[in-house]
Amino acid sequence: MKKLQDSIVGFIGLGLMGGALAMGLRKQGPKKITGYDINSEVIEKALNQSVIDEGVTDSQGLQQMLAACDLVFICLSPMDALAFLALYMEDFKPGAIITDIAGVKGVIFNNLGNLLRKDIDFIPGHPMAGSEKEGYGGADDRIFQNRNYILTPLPSNQPENIAFIREIVTALGFNHIVETTCAIHDEKIAFTSQLCHVIAAALVDCEDDLSITDFEGGSFGDLTRIAMINAPMWTELFMCNRKNLLNQVEKFEASLAIMKAMIKAEEKTELIDRLTAVRKKRVIMGEIRDAKSLKKK
Amino acid sequence: MKKLQDSIVGFIGLGLMGGALAMGLRKQGPKKITGYDINSEVIEKALNQSVIDEGVTDSQGLQQMLAACDLVFICLSPMDALAFLALYMEDFKPGAIITDIAGVKGVIFNNLGNLLRKDIDFIPGHPMAGSEKEGYGGADDRIFQNRNYILTPLPSNQPENIAFIREIVTALGFNHIVETTCAIHDEKIAFTSQLCHVIAAALVDCEDDLSITDFEGGSFGDLTRIAMINAPMWTELFMCNRKNLLNQVEKFEASLAIMKAMIKAEEKTELIDRLTAVRKKRVIMGEIRDAKSLKKK
Repeated sequence: MKKLQDSIVGFIGLGLMGGALAMGLRKQGPKKITGYDINSEVIEKALNQSVIDEGVTDSQGLQQMLAACDLVFICLSPMDALAFLALYMEDFKPGAIITDIAGVKGVIFNNLGNLLRKDIDFIPGHPMAGSEKEGYGGADDRIFQNRNYILTPLPSNQPENIAFIREIVTALGFNHIVETTCAIHDEKIAFTSQLCHVIAAALVDCEDDLSITDFEGGSFGDLTRIAMINAPMWTELFMCNRKNLLNQVEKFEASLAIMKAMIKAEEKTELIDRLTAVRKKRVIMGEIRDAKSLKKK
Repeated sequence: MKKLQDSIVGFIGLGLMGGALAMGLRKQGPKKITGYDINSEVIEKALNQSVIDEGVTDSQGLQQMLAACDLVFICLSPMDALAFLALYMEDFKPGAIITDIAGVKGVIFNNLGNLLRKDIDFIPGHPMAGSEKEGYGGADDRIFQNRNYILTPLPSNQPENIAFIREIVTALGFNHIVETTCAIHDEKIAFTSQLCHVIAAALVDCEDDLSITDFEGGSFGDLTRIAMINAPMWTELFMCNRKNLLNQVEKFEASLAIMKAMIKAEEKTELIDRLTAVRKKRVIMGEIRDAKSLKKK
């Protein structure tokens, strides 16, 4: 297994997630951290904060950087990650481990075809953490504490390289690492993440009273925090996972319609039974997740 | 204006909210705190914790208790509050201030008719705080910090008595007190509170995979925490505010349908514009509320 202290780690994109991952990696003592971002102010800031040791902003610098990296985190949106892989596939160091953070998986791997080099090991990943902030300025590695990290390994991945990623991710603070397929990832994520963002956005969208927060008791705040959305990024995620997302929206609409009908028809007993079942289910969902934690809070 | 140190304060119901209010009131040094609850274990626990000085569990004890109270908090569900007021109206001390915490207002006052005595001052209230816990065991007055408290004063209320309630509520930790009508309260609360609970419940209801939390990154947890619902209480709240709630559900369904159509038709630009507007609106809603805070966090 590779050792982090002997590895040069490269970050492609130092946004909210790339920045936070680099900050967390720094604490694990790799040999060197290098970063690529098109925004030179971000590179400067990351250098000043010693989050990266070297930074590049242009294509030529990027090629040189990639040739030296033992481990690369591609921290771009799905379509940018796909474009990056297509453009720079030849520049990775032989034997390098490559991973990414894209919130949808199918679109990348279905379109990558046989571009993927056999002498590098690409292990797709998705850190299930985020923030309503944006960009490097909002990056903070504390968001990783006790979160899920999903890996969607390819059949070609080396077990020791997967173990290497798992070790790094655990040290970052994630306490449950899930290995699954791209297809299952995209189906489940359409529910837990994308549908939730659509609901939060629709909830804010449908209310015109800007002083509605006078009547806020916590619920509205909890349900709409994620409506402070990075609009282009989430539009891309929605579009890249359109079919799964539309299925999930319809599933939710059906449940909502049933509850609405019960309220309309004043079916009190039926509604109490349904809400009791919901409470029980939600409690069990939480308990199942807690039981899987690598370490307790 | 009444002074709290000269006042005997009575709590009708020591559940999650009654218990928390009594705990908070205790710190303000009233002359005495008395409590009524049908559950003798709750009364015993509240006595042991010195949250109340005296407690009763029966109707006779309740009548005697009410005759001595200068201030009464009715901490029951809306229909129980209505029944309580109808049954014990004659037992309040002349000149007493009565308030409640019911999550819907119209149903109480529209049905109370001319039962309300002219020698007591009933000031309806609604503390906008809560918890997924239930009952006295879950009571904790920290839930009030920086929350909204809504008062729906009646035309007959004495200004100095409203000021007295405002003073107490502010000392409890609430940092924004809203005065409005029962009708506006019920319309707005149907959105910020009841619709949010219906959405959270529908979101859990529509998912059958109990291990879905493997794919959870914060959004699903935030949106469904309130699905751990007190089913009979919330069913009552939904039914008591049926018309307003159904209007809000339909308003939300319409916004959801628009976003769904945009995703289906791959209208990227339109969706980015809409999500950008949503983000802006949500930020402004938060800023407007922050600006109204009596004190900063």
